[in-house]
Formats: sequence, structure tokens, C-alpha cells
Amino acid sequence: MLDSQPQRAAARLLSWIEDEDPRAVAALQATWSRTGNGYVIGVTGPPGAGKSTLVDCLAVHAAAQGHTVGVLAVDPTSPFSGGAVLGDRLRMNGAQQQGVFIRSVATRGHLGGLTATTRYLVNALELLGCDLVFVETVGAGQGDVEVVQLADTTVVVEVPGLGDEVQAQKAGILEIGDLLLVNKSDRPGADRLAQELLSAVELGEPRDWQPPVLQVTAIEGTGIDAAWDAIVDHRAHMEAGPLADDRLARQMHELEQQLQQQLFRDRMVTIGDKALRSAAERVLARRSDPFSAINRLAN
Amino acid sequence: MLDSQPQRAAARLLSWIEDEDPRAVAALQATWSRTGNGYVIGVTGPPGAGKSTLVDCLAVHAAAQGHTVGVLAVDPTSPFSGGAVLGDRLRMNGAQQQGVFIRSVATRGHLGGLTATTRYLVNALELLGCDLVFVETVGAGQGDVEVVQLADTTVVVEVPGLGDEVQAQKAGILEIGDLLLVNKSDRPGADRLAQELLSAVELGEPRDWQPPVLQVTAIEGTGIDAAWDAIVDHRAHMEAGPLADDRLARQMHELEQQLQQQLFRDRMVTIGDKALRSAAERVLARRSDPFSAINRLAN
Repeated sequence: MLDSQPQRAAARLLSWIEDEDPRAVAALQATWSRTGNGYVIGVTGPPGAGKSTLVDCLAVHAAAQGHTVGVLAVDPTSPFSGGAVLGDRLRMNGAQQQGVFIRSVATRGHLGGLTATTRYLVNALELLGCDLVFVETVGAGQGDVEVVQLADTTVVVEVPGLGDEVQAQKAGILEIGDLLLVNKSDRPGADRLAQELLSAVELGEPRDWQPPVLQVTAIEGTGIDAAWDAIVDHRAHMEAGPLADDRLARQMHELEQQLQQQLFRDRMVTIGDKALRSAAERVLARRSDPFSAINRLAN
Repeated sequence: MLDSQPQRAAARLLSWIEDEDPRAVAALQATWSRTGNGYVIGVTGPPGAGKSTLVDCLAVHAAAQGHTVGVLAVDPTSPFSGGAVLGDRLRMNGAQQQGVFIRSVATRGHLGGLTATTRYLVNALELLGCDLVFVETVGAGQGDVEVVQLADTTVVVEVPGLGDEVQAQKAGILEIGDLLLVNKSDRPGADRLAQELLSAVELGEPRDWQPPVLQVTAIEGTGIDAAWDAIVDHRAHMEAGPLADDRLARQMHELEQQLQQQLFRDRMVTIGDKALRSAAERVLARRSDPFSAINRLAN
């Protein structure tokens, strides 16, 4: 770990990002060259899948292997309030006692989008000394796909007994999983769910990496060793080849998002906020179609 | 309903939007003045809440009241495949038999974002003669908030027994609900859930409209009358005042999204795609921080 001075600076940076303090940008710029050394593991899945318990187990396990571990529980779900619903969230005592750095954040993605803002939170954890960061999305799986895009390894957590509609969703979420975990495997239907996931993987497009399907019961710590080993395997696979291209593609996507927002801000300075309002009024009154309105605003 | 020629054109427009056919834009422009007459009801909630059954019940009920009803089941969840997972989805026979126009669409939002694209699908349904359109998001509730932003009335569906993590999410999703429905109210825990939702509403910020909390069991058709009446009440409340401002704010947001994308496309024509790639390479190699990179790309 770092000595106390840089560590205080890193902790302050983390708070600045969370609090949307404008000083965050300069601090990120000043420290940029010292970030980027962490490996990021994304964890997603439907509500009720037990993601936080699972992440805590994996984090403790990784810490025991010598990693300095950070956990970001990101709540992208409060675009209307901006408030954290995470404050009263239960976390296992284990993880925090064993030196795992856990941070629950509700962010609307003020620093150029949700993925970018979460990426900067990861960078702040790297400055705190973390070489391994779990990014867990609190919430609803599919909508959190965006956040997971910053992960080097993505773990998808499923759970038996969530109903038929969930089944239909798996097609989408399966495609992003490098590792599929059936949590709460002591429940009825766990074996069948694991079998279905395995079939889905085998029926899918052949890939360089075939996502393993494993059963765990995080609350009892069952299956965590095997899940961790699968993560290590995937990391080795990534680092032997695809990781660099993968990170480049993701960085390009992030820059694209941020550039869009920057160009918009610059344009608004030129044309004024009222232009947007009056364009919207014309579109609603059917005096202009939206495509023509956009062209006028852009040129 | 319209005569067959415009109806064929409207059906073709719907397909063009779904298929990302470039002819969709000109067709939307040509028909823009004839759209915007529908009232949009958004339905969201967690997976397994029984949204599709509920929407089908409400749609049949509305059709019986004399409305020409459309249903869009939007799947925003396949950013990686673009494929519909809705094809094999079960829908009640009732709705389709009773003249309700149902369309399940997987869209990545190619026409300027997910909300805008869904809005255009609503416009196509309006051209088919629909004066009432349900937009149901398939999937995960929170992440689908974006799509729901085009609704004039938003129905949030909850269901007992989805676990503790779901509870924590309610804060966010409650804020968007104009009507809160506890579905599957024949299940244990339904009364308690309804009571909790009611308390949450009463504890929240006072609003012009206090969202009612109602219990339904869609699969048996129980409570649908009362739910429909609550929607009608909310519509009357909106049309007596807030609707115009509400629609204006939403239209401004849509135009903002689309303008961002347009400005980005225009900029890429000027600087070339390679500039983005080389900026991403510099950022990853820590030779440039992302904020400086964006400034260089934007100017």
C-alpha cells in the first residue's frame, strides 16, 4: 500500500467523483499516469441474485491470495433522485475486516457517462493501491450492461426461481458473461438452471473463450474457490491475447460518449439553450419534424 | 381505422424502423404532421412481475372502452446481438383477437437513441389509427427507465417475493410511477408489499399527484377495472395541466440526445475515425488523460 499522503489524496479524489466536485477532473488529470494498473471484474445479474454477497466472498478470497482488492457497488438507478439507496445496504462484515476496500456509489455519470465515471472511480481505487477491482451493479442486470462494459472479466449471476420472464432475458445477458454463476444453488431448480445455461452457451456462437457455468451458494461460501479459479483462467486467457484490443475498443467507446457530450456543450454555448426549447416546441406542434430540427440545430 | 392504403404504409414504416431501414427517416418526416395524437402509457417493473400479462389485460379493457389500442413490447436488452428474444414470447390470445395491435421489438435505438426510436414506433402505431399506446419494457425495470420517459402515464409493476435486493431498488423506481400495481396479489406477501409501497409514497416528497397503490392479479383478470380507472384519473390530471410542460421537457431531452449524436457524426467526418482510435491509444498508454484528449478531438 501507499504511504498516507497519496492515500489521503486518493480517498479525497474518490469523494470528489462521488460528490460531483469540479476538482475531480484536475485531480484525475494530475494522477492519470499512475492509474490503469488494476484488473477489473464486473459482476451483473438480476435483482435478488445475491450479487453483493457473492462479490464479498470473491473479494475476501482474492485478498487471501495476496491481491489488494477494491469493490465498487454502483447504483445507476436513480436518474431522478441522484440519491443513494445503498446507504442501508447490508454488506458482509468479512470483506471489510479483511482489508477489502468497499465503496457503494450512486452516480448519474456526470463525468461523461456512467461507464466513464465508474472508470474514474476504479482509477481512484487504483491510486489507493488496489490491483483488483470488482464492479458490481446494483439492480437489474440488463440495464447495467453499460457499466459492465468497463470490465476485463464479466461475471453474470443467475438464480433459480425468478420466473419465466427471466428466462427470456438470458439470451442478452449471456452474451456478455465470461463466467456464468448460478447462485443460491441450494434452492430447487438450480441444477436445471445450470443445465439450461450450459445448453445456451453450447448453442451459441463458438467463441475463443467458452464461458464456464458454475454453481455457488455465496451465503455459505460454497463454490467460491472454483468461481475464483475460473476468473483467474479467464484473466490468463485475456492477457495472453485479446485484452489489449478489448480495452482499446472500450476506451474508444468511452471517448465517443464523452466527445458527444463535449460537442453538445460547445454547441449550446453557440446557439443558446432557448434554441433547443423552441425546436422542441416546433416538433411537438408538428411545425417541424425532429430530423429537420436536429439538422438546423447542428448547422 | 384508416383505409387500407395508409394502413399498409404505416405497417411498412413500422417494419422499416424495426429493420433499421434508412427509408424510415423520410417516411417519418413525410407523416410527421399526422402523428402525435396518441396517449402513451409506459409499464415497467422487475423481471418476473408479469408485465406482459398485465398489459394485455389493460389493453383488452381499453379496447372495450372504445380505444384503438397499440402495444409495444420493447426489448432494449440486446446491445450485443441486436436480436429479438421476444419471438417465442407468450402473449395472451385475448388481446390480439380483440383488435389490439401488438408489436414486440428489439431495438438498439438506431434512430437517435432508444427513447427516440421507441417514440417513432409509437408514431407509426398512431398512423395505424391507435389513440392509446402501451409501451412495455421487457426486462429489468431500472435500466428501462429511459424508455419509460416517453410515457404520459407510467405504471410501475411490483410483485411479492422477489427478495431483499428488490426492496432496496424501490426508491428509484417509485419516483417514476404514476400508478403502482402489486401484481400476483394472490401470492403471500402481497398485502405487506402494497402497504410498504403506500408508506414509501406517503413518506416521499408531496406531489400534485399522489400515486395510488393497487393490487391486481393479472392472470385472473382481478383488479384490472380499478387499475384502468386509475390510469384514466391520472390522464385527466395530466391533461388538466402538467401534460404540455411534461411533453415539452421530454421532447427537449430527446432532441438533446439526437443532437449529440448528430454533432458527433459531423465531427467524425471532419477529423476521421482514426483520430478517435489514436486518442484512445494515447489514453490507454497514459500519454494523455481523457479530458485533454476530448478537448483535442472537439476543437
